[in-house]
Formats: sequence, C-alpha cells, structure tokens
Amino acid sequence: MSPVKQPLLVTMGDAAGIGPEIIVRAFQAGELADAVVLGDPAVLRRAGKVMTAVIETPQDLAEVPPACLPVLVPPGLPAGLAGLPMGRVHADNGAAAARCIEAAVALVQARLGAAIVTAPIHKEALAAAGVPHPGHTEMLQALAATPGQALPPVRMMLANEELRVVLVTIHLSLRRALDAVTFDAVLGTLRIAHHAAAAWGQPRPRMAVAGLNPHAGEGGLFGDEELNIIGPAVQAAVAEGMLASGPYAPDTVFMRARRGEFDLVVAMTHDHGLIPVKYLGVEQGVNVTLGLPFVRTSPDHGTAFDIAGQRLADPASLVAALRMARALVARRAAG
Amino acid sequence: MSPVKQPLLVTMGDAAGIGPEIIVRAFQAGELADAVVLGDPAVLRRAGKVMTAVIETPQDLAEVPPACLPVLVPPGLPAGLAGLPMGRVHADNGAAAARCIEAAVALVQARLGAAIVTAPIHKEALAAAGVPHPGHTEMLQALAATPGQALPPVRMMLANEELRVVLVTIHLSLRRALDAVTFDAVLGTLRIAHHAAAAWGQPRPRMAVAGLNPHAGEGGLFGDEELNIIGPAVQAAVAEGMLASGPYAPDTVFMRARRGEFDLVVAMTHDHGLIPVKYLGVEQGVNVTLGLPFVRTSPDHGTAFDIAGQRLADPASLVAALRMARALVARRAAG
Repeated sequence: MSPVKQPLLVTMGDAAGIGPEIIVRAFQAGELADAVVLGDPAVLRRAGKVMTAVIETPQDLAEVPPACLPVLVPPGLPAGLAGLPMGRVHADNGAAAARCIEAAVALVQARLGAAIVTAPIHKEALAAAGVPHPGHTEMLQALAATPGQALPPVRMMLANEELRVVLVTIHLSLRRALDAVTFDAVLGTLRIAHHAAAAWGQPRPRMAVAGLNPHAGEGGLFGDEELNIIGPAVQAAVAEGMLASGPYAPDTVFMRARRGEFDLVVAMTHDHGLIPVKYLGVEQGVNVTLGLPFVRTSPDHGTAFDIAGQRLADPASLVAALRMARALVARRAAG
Repeated sequence: MSPVKQPLLVTMGDAAGIGPEIIVRAFQAGELADAVVLGDPAVLRRAGKVMTAVIETPQDLAEVPPACLPVLVPPGLPAGLAGLPMGRVHADNGAAAARCIEAAVALVQARLGAAIVTAPIHKEALAAAGVPHPGHTEMLQALAATPGQALPPVRMMLANEELRVVLVTIHLSLRRALDAVTFDAVLGTLRIAHHAAAAWGQPRPRMAVAGLNPHAGEGGLFGDEELNIIGPAVQAAVAEGMLASGPYAPDTVFMRARRGEFDLVVAMTHDHGLIPVKYLGVEQGVNVTLGLPFVRTSPDHGTAFDIAGQRLADPASLVAALRMARALVARRAAG
C-alpha cells in the first residue's frame, strides 16, 4: 500500500452560507478525494445528499470509504449549528467558522495537512462571535505568527489559469488607495510575491508592475506616482536581484502577462487587478494568500446568503481553489 | 449595374508612422474594397507594394480597378512628404494629417462617405503644424460643430466583438480623474451613449454603470462617490427614460456585460474601462467617438514611430476599426 499523502484541509466556512453546499457538490463531483473537511457533519448533510465519516486525524483518510465525505470536527465547535436558519448572521456560525480555521492551521503546521482551502466566512458573524479579525487573511496572518514577533507581511493574489495578480492595496476607497501606494508598499509587495513564487519552484518570477495612472503617467503628464514612487520601488527590487520591471501602462500589461510575457503582475488597486482576473468568468478566479508559511487558497466569492440553502450555488470557484492548492503544493514539493 | 454605396473614408494619419503601412496591408488583405483613402499616393506606395489610383471624388471608386488602392488627395496637402524621414516628428506630416481629416469630415457631411476611419496621428507633429487640437477626438468635435454654437459633447467608446465601454474620464491622472467624476459628467456620458446607440438601431441600450471604488464602495465603507454622485446620476438617467443601472462592482460588471447582461458599460476611469477591452488582445480593440453626427472609428494604437517603415506593423486593429465602422453604418441604416 502506498503511503497516504497529506490531504488538503477544507474549512466549512459560515454554516448559514453556501460554503457547505459547494463543498458537498465538489465532493459529489469527485474533487475532494484527497481532502478532509473541517466542519460539522450535520451541517454538511443538511447541505446536500451525502454520507459523512467522522475522523480523528487527517491520517485516517485512507480508511474512509470513497462514498463518504471525511469530516474532522474541530475542538470547541458549537453544538446545534444545523438547527440555525440559513442566510442569517449567527454568532455560533461565526465561532464555528473560526474553530475550523484554527484547527486547520494547527494541522497544517503539524504537517498533517498539505494546504488549507477555505470556504467563505461572514464578517458580521465572525464579529458577533467576538473574533477580532475582519477576515480570513488577517486571521491566518495572526495564527501563522510566531508568538511575540511581528505579524508576517501578507498580500492577496488573485489567479486563474492564465493570469496571476498580486495587489498592493485592497479594501480601501480609491482615494485612500492612492495614498496607500507608497515606495514601501510596492517594494514589500514585490518581495512577498518574489519569495512566494520561489517557494513554488519559480525562484526568479518575471514580475511586471502595473502603473497607477493612464499610460503609466505618460512621462508625468497624467500623474507622477510612476516617476516618484512605483519606478523607484521597481528599481530597488531589481537592485535586490528580482526580475521586476515596469511600471507599465495598466491597460495593456495584463494582456501581455496573459500572453506569457510575465509570470505575475503587481497591481496598485483592487480593481486594476481584479477586473482582468474576473473578466473571463468569476468562477475561475482563486484567491491565494502570499506570505504565509503554508499554502492557502479560497474561492473568490462570499457566503451568498441570498441563495444559501437553495442548492443553487456553483462549486466552480471552490474546485478551482482546490486545484490551485494542489498545484501549489506540487510545485513547492518539486522546488 | 447596382448603385455604388457610399464608401468608407480612411485617413492616412501621420506619414512618418505606421498608418500608411497598415492601410496598405489591409488593402492587400482585401479589407478596403469599399473604402477610399485620404492621403498622399507616394507615401502609400512607399509603405508597401501597391498601385495607387488617384480619384477626384468618392463616387469615382466604382471605376477603380480592384488591384489599385483608390486615393483622394485632400486640398492643401504639403508636397514632398514621401521624402521625409520615417519615425520622426515633422510639421508637414502634422499638416498633412490634418488636411486628410478635414477633407474626410467635409465629404462625410456632404454624404459622399459613409463613415470615417482614422489611422494614427502624432500629437507633436500636429502641434508643430500649428493645429490647435491635441488629438482626433477634439479635432473632429470642432469640425463637426455648427459655427457659432457650442461644441457637441463627445465621449470615447472602446469596443471589441464582445464588450463596449464608454469612458467618463480619459487622459487625466487618477487623482484628477477622481475629481472629474461628477454628476454632470456621469449623466452626460449616459445621455451620449444612449443617443449614440439609438442611432445604430439600439433605441434603448441596457447601460451598466461601473462604480469607482472596490465593491462599488460597499455601502459607503470604501468610498462615497457611488452614493453621492454615481448612483444619483444613474437614477436621473432612469428618470429620463434610459435603461441605466448600477453602480456595479467594477471587478465583475465587465464580465457580466461580456456574457450579454448589458449592451455597454460606462466606466469612470481610463483603465477600469480599457483593461477589460484590451485583455483578450489589443489588436481587437476599436476606438469609436460617440456624440458626432457621423460614424468615426480608429484602431486603438498610436503611430508606433519605433517600428514605422519596417513593415512590421500589424493591421489587425485597423481591420477591426473598418469592420466596426461598416457594422455601425449598417445598423444606423437599418435603425
């Protein structure tokens, strides 16, 4: 018998959202054969026609019949979640989502899991449960930190099969994002992206830096951030040995990366980066957190409370996140 | 014998750029059978292996053998253009480009041409010739104006086979563009787009308005332009009877339009709009000026002085502009 590989660890997300549904649908489609779900078996059974097999450790996966969804119940999971209404914020669902994530991080750090794939959580439910983090990224950053040391710097990467984009700024108004585009933020993003790609077997990724202004400022005519901030940060990255270039005109750099000229694009704003990633179909987009000591991916959508419980949710983005996690783990192992 | 249709009028653009080359290549590919070029026959012959037939009026096109490129020499064209160097700014080339555009507008307004398709001009050459307009859009706007009346409001539309985007702001730094996103600018853009589409046989286009901020501001959390400016402008457009909706999250509205949910998208900034149009290949993008009393399209690239004269230039965007002009003329005739 061949040794069991470390499985992917899939967190259930908010039980009142579409997370459990898309997990069950992905399992039914054969996409969870190498994965263990962190969650509540009753919630998963409520989400779709599925048999669950509760296991104690990811190593038990080999003993689970293929027809059963392997579920690992995290310590401290609140009881009675399957009796709570769908599509509504509840503190117990927020607490449960947090317990699943905590357990997944503990397992992946103990080398009992290969990577973490997270189903969507709800920010209000998390807050109602007293969890001090606004979202996955911040929570994972805190859980991955060495006690007593600074948080590891992380960045959001959005990726599909043809494009990888790493964002300098995320959830800020465009006015505030303009002020957050600093030399340190751009250089820091390049360092994180460079290091993350190295861990996947791409030791010197070709990183294109998109400008902020039309035509990347047209030599200062349409804005000076390229001359004063972004260009110097690119030069500093090159001086550190990275294959960074730019700033390029935002309207053509993503097309150039798609054609293979670059391995990834660093974008200054949320929408410069996300518009091209999502253009060909939102279900293809996968969110990857860079800077963590382990692989973490997620679908690029939320809990969709408006359709949760109706079995309408499309598992495509979760499936893409599972496949991306597998590919990243394989590249990391090969690198 | 069937009556001759009004031909497309193709302006040569700057003689030192790639305009003449891409025109000759498009002719060789059979894409200019229903077109007349406004330009200098010697410059066109220098640009590629082609025979030229000088005609006096577009109505003479029927008598030109298919093997010859029909050229109409505009009044006032400077002499000796074919002796000037490629890839360099020259006042005579700027003046020639302007004469071609003026002649094309006169012909299309006299109903002797169906539409204008412009090859790229060079802003510095135009300025060196004393032309007071920074580019095609402003020059066409002035030429189309009724003497003594205000300039017609125009907007740039970028379009390919699957997406149409109309821009509220164009060549401004992102900081200045934020200030240029006003109620009047957004509503004015919707009116122009609505009216233009009606002229092409789409009397009530489904117009999606993209927000400015991530997630269209997330209810004011990431910026308030959607609540205070864009949303009210959309409501005003609806009150005027237009099928406008939004503001939508910028990162998914273009994908939704591509899938057929909307007929066009109004974007607040140059790059929000141009990133998706160009993502699948810059040669597909066509620039259309909305608000003019005639159809005008152009390829979405410049004079490319760096490669001009080397016969490396790709005519694909010019060909797309020719096809778009034909389609718009046909829709306008059918509407």
